[in-house]
Amino acid sequence: MRESAETRETPANSHHAIWSVSAEHVPAERSQAAIEAARGLLRERLTTNVTLREQHGHGEGPVRAHAPDAVAFVTSVDEISEMLRLCHREGVPVVPFGAGSSLEGQVNAVCGGISLDLSRMNAIIEVNQEDMDCLVEPGVTREQLNAFVRDRGLFFPVDPGAACTIGGMCATRASGTNAVRYGTIRENVLGLEVVLADGRVISTGGRVRKAANGYDLTHLFIGSEGTLGVISKIRLRLQGIPEATSAAVAQFPTLSAAVEAVFATMQLGIPVARVELLDDVQMAASIAYSRLNEFEPLPTLFFEFNGSASSVKEQAELVEATAGEAGCIRFSWASETEARSRLWAARHRAYPAAVALRPGARGIATDVCVPISRLAEAVLGAKEDIAASGLIAPIAGHVGDGNFHCCILVDPDDPSELERALALDHSIVARGLALGGTCSGEHGIGLGKRAFLQREHGDDALDVMKSIKFALDPKGILNPGKVFLDTSLPNRGSGRVES
Amino acid sequence: MRESAETRETPANSHHAIWSVSAEHVPAERSQAAIEAARGLLRERLTTNVTLREQHGHGEGPVRAHAPDAVAFVTSVDEISEMLRLCHREGVPVVPFGAGSSLEGQVNAVCGGISLDLSRMNAIIEVNQEDMDCLVEPGVTREQLNAFVRDRGLFFPVDPGAACTIGGMCATRASGTNAVRYGTIRENVLGLEVVLADGRVISTGGRVRKAANGYDLTHLFIGSEGTLGVISKIRLRLQGIPEATSAAVAQFPTLSAAVEAVFATMQLGIPVARVELLDDVQMAASIAYSRLNEFEPLPTLFFEFNGSASSVKEQAELVEATAGEAGCIRFSWASETEARSRLWAARHRAYPAAVALRPGARGIATDVCVPISRLAEAVLGAKEDIAASGLIAPIAGHVGDGNFHCCILVDPDDPSELERALALDHSIVARGLALGGTCSGEHGIGLGKRAFLQREHGDDALDVMKSIKFALDPKGILNPGKVFLDTSLPNRGSGRVES
Repeated sequence: MRESAETRETPANSHHAIWSVSAEHVPAERSQAAIEAARGLLRERLTTNVTLREQHGHGEGPVRAHAPDAVAFVTSVDEISEMLRLCHREGVPVVPFGAGSSLEGQVNAVCGGISLDLSRMNAIIEVNQEDMDCLVEPGVTREQLNAFVRDRGLFFPVDPGAACTIGGMCATRASGTNAVRYGTIRENVLGLEVVLADGRVISTGGRVRKAANGYDLTHLFIGSEGTLGVISKIRLRLQGIPEATSAAVAQFPTLSAAVEAVFATMQLGIPVARVELLDDVQMAASIAYSRLNEFEPLPTLFFEFNGSASSVKEQAELVEATAGEAGCIRFSWASETEARSRLWAARHRAYPAAVALRPGARGIATDVCVPISRLAEAVLGAKEDIAASGLIAPIAGHVGDGNFHCCILVDPDDPSELERALALDHSIVARGLALGGTCSGEHGIGLGKRAFLQREHGDDALDVMKSIKFALDPKGILNPGKVFLDTSLPNRGSGRVES
Repeated sequence: MRESAETRETPANSHHAIWSVSAEHVPAERSQAAIEAARGLLRERLTTNVTLREQHGHGEGPVRAHAPDAVAFVTSVDEISEMLRLCHREGVPVVPFGAGSSLEGQVNAVCGGISLDLSRMNAIIEVNQEDMDCLVEPGVTREQLNAFVRDRGLFFPVDPGAACTIGGMCATRASGTNAVRYGTIRENVLGLEVVLADGRVISTGGRVRKAANGYDLTHLFIGSEGTLGVISKIRLRLQGIPEATSAAVAQFPTLSAAVEAVFATMQLGIPVARVELLDDVQMAASIAYSRLNEFEPLPTLFFEFNGSASSVKEQAELVEATAGEAGCIRFSWASETEARSRLWAARHRAYPAAVALRPGARGIATDVCVPISRLAEAVLGAKEDIAASGLIAPIAGHVGDGNFHCCILVDPDDPSELERALALDHSIVARGLALGGTCSGEHGIGLGKRAFLQREHGDDALDVMKSIKFALDPKGILNPGKVFLDTSLPNRGSGRVES
C-alpha cells in the first residue's frame, strides 16, 4: 500500500550507485585473521586463488565485480555455523554465494571478506510423496530437484530460467515463468533452517500447510538477500505433474494488442500455467539467437496450459478465442514435448539473445511489476521511453503477474550513454511506482535497486527494515552494502562492520 | 523444520499460564496520565465505563478476563497514531481490539492500559474489480465485505466462522474452512498500513501479486497479534464467485474411515473448497444444537465444491467414490443454497454446540495442525487420550489442511478436573509436535499457547522473535504479555513497559 506512504526524493545521483559502490573494505588484518581461522577449519576448501575470488565477485547483472578476500566452500550446516562464528568474532563480512546467477550485484563482496560458497551443499535430503514436500540443501539447483522428483510424479514449479540454486531463489525471493499459476518461491517454501550472524542455527516454519505460531520468520528470511542469515536447509512444497501439458504461441500486430490479450485472459480467470510476452525487438533477437525461424519478429505471447487433457484443451481454445478478439494474427500450437522444450528454451535464453543484439554491451534489466489493470500503461509507456532514449532495450516479461523486464543495452565505458541508460531505467521504474507497482518483481534489490527501494517504501518503512537488520546482525557482517543505501538508524549506531 | 530445532523442556507448570497470568500492572498514575491525554483527543470515545472495560477484557476463549483501564474507540489512522504516540510517551500498554472473537486471550489487558477498539473503523475504502483486490479498514467484518462485493461477482474466501474483523484475522493469521482451497489470510493479503509503537505510520506490500522488494514486512505483521504494530488498513485479494457450488455430507462408521477418506481425497488432488470433520461426539452435539435431525451421530465429513458446473459434478462424484472406498455408509447432497447454508451454519456453530453439551463448562480448544500424512495418527491418538482422560472433548477440524480442534469441556473451578484437562491438552499438542506439526494452525498464541510456542521453536528462534519485538517496540507497550512467556533478551534489557 505504498500509494499512501510518504516518499522522499532520493538524491539525483543515487541511482548511479550500481556503477560506483563506495564501501569501506574490512581492514586487512581482520580479514587475514578470519582467513587463517577458516583455513584451519576447511583446509583446501578455503581458497584465496585469484580466479576463484574474481569469479565469486559478481553475478550475471551489469554491476562490476567486487572480489572477496577468500572463498570458503562449506559442506555442512556445522561448517556454516563455525564460519559465521569466527567471522562474527573478527567482524569480517560474509557473502553467501550459490550459482552466482543473481542480477543486482547480490553476491558482490563490496566490503571484501569471505564469499561463502554453498554450491557443494547440494543434497536432496528427503522427498515426502504423501505430503508432496521435500527437504533440500541450499546448493540444490531447480533442474537437479526436478530430475530427482520426476519419477515420483512430482515437480517443483518455480522456474526463473537460470541454473540457479534453491538457496539463492529463497534469498532473492525469485519467481519466473510459472508464478502466474503456482506462485513464487515465497508461496512454495514451508520452512527454513537458517544460520544466524553469530553462528546459532534456527528452524522456521515446518511441514504444515498453515500455522499461526508466532512471527513469520520464514517469510522474513525469504527475500532478505543474505543480510539477515544464511539459509542452510529448505523445506519445499512440490506439485503433482499435470496429466496434460500444451503450449501455444500467439503473434500480434501491435504491442498493445498483445497486452490486451493478456489482460483479457487473466480477467476470464483462465488458469494458464505460463503467459510470457516478448516484444518485437526481443522476438527478433530470439529468432536470431534460438533459430525460431517459423515466427515473425512481432509482439508475441508464449502460453503453457496444465491440467487434465480436457481442461488443457478447453483452456487453449478459450485463449485462442480471446487472443483472436484482441487481434492475434497467428496462433500456433506446440503439444509435442520437443516443440515445447524448444520454445521454452528460447524464452529462457531471452537475456543472452538480447545482449547478442549488441556485442560488448551490458544489459541493465528493469524488473517493474504492476497490477494487471495497469500493465498496458506500464509496458506501452516503457516502449515510448525506450524509443525516446535512442537505446536498444528488448522487452520480455511474466505478464500474467504484471511483471516485465526491459533489457537496456549499454556500453558502460561511454559515460553519456550510461547516463541516458540510467535515466531510462529511472523513468520506467518511476512510472511503475506511480501505477501502484514495485521496482522489483523478482530480481531483488542487491546493489542496483537500493535507491528505488528507498523511494518505494519511504523512510519509516526502511527504518523498520533496518531495525530488524540491526537486531539480527548488530555487527553488520552479513552481506554488507546490500538492500540499503546505508544502514544507519537514529540513536542506534551505524550497523556497520566494526569491532 | 522444527524437527531439527533444539527444543527445551518447558517448566512443568508453564502450561497453566492460561489460567494464572501474573503480569505487572502499569502504575496507576501513568495510566491516568495517558487516559487524560486520550480524553482530550477522543472526548466521549474514550471511556472508563466498567461494563465496556469488562467487555474489552476478554475474547471467546477460556482465559479469564483482564480489563483494561480504559477503552478508546478510534475512528481514523491519525487517531491511532496519536493514541500510540501518547501511550508511548507515558509507557502505557495498548491492546488492539476488533470483534473480541479470539480464542487465546489475545485481547486481554493483562498489564492494564488502554484497549484500542478498532471496530468503528469499518469502511470499505475501495474495490478494484479488474485486479480483484480491495482496501479496507481493520474493523470491517468478513460478512460485511462479502455482502458488499457479492454484486460485483467477487468474494473474500477466508472464513473462520466467527463474526471476526479483517484486522483481527490479520493479527492472528486466521484461516478456517476455505483455506484448503484458497489459502489462509496470509495468502490473501497484498499489503498493510501499520501504525508503529511510537505512532509512525508505514505501508507494506502493495497492489502487485509478487515483489522482491526488501524485507517482507507484510508477513511479519500478519500473525504478530498486535505486539509489533497496529494494523490500520488492509489490501486484500478477492476471488471470482465460482459458477457453481455444491455441498455433500459423508458419514462413516469409524473415525479412522473418515480420516482415510480425507487423506485419499487430498492425495487425488481433488480441489475441494472445504472438507470438514466432525467426530461422533461433535456430530451428536451439532445434531442437538442445530437440529440436523436427518443425520446420525457418526464421524462425518462436510464437503463443498466450487467450479464450473461440470467440474463441481466431477469433483463430487470423485469424492463420493473415494469416500465409498474408505467405508462411507451414507453420502448425501446439498446443492440448493438453502440446504448448504443450513449445513455450514451448523458447522460454524460447532463451538457453542460443543459447549452446550455441558452447561457451565468452558471449552479449551486445541488447534494442532499436522502434515496430512500424519493426520490419522494425530486425530486417532487425540481420541484415545480423550477417552483415557474421562473428559468430554468433541473434535471438529479443517482436515484438508491437517488442522483439527478438540474442544475440552472443563469446569474451571474444579482444580483436579482442570489439571486433567490441561494434561490432556498437553498430550494432544505434544503428539502433534512429534508428528511434525504445530501447536496452532489458526488460533494464534496469545496467552494460552505461549509455553507450547517455546517448545515448538526452541530458544534461539524465540530469541530472534524477541529481538524483532524489542527492535520495533523497545518500550514493550504493544499488547504486552502475549506470544512470549517473557520477553527478556540476553544483554538487551527486559523489553517490559518502563519509563
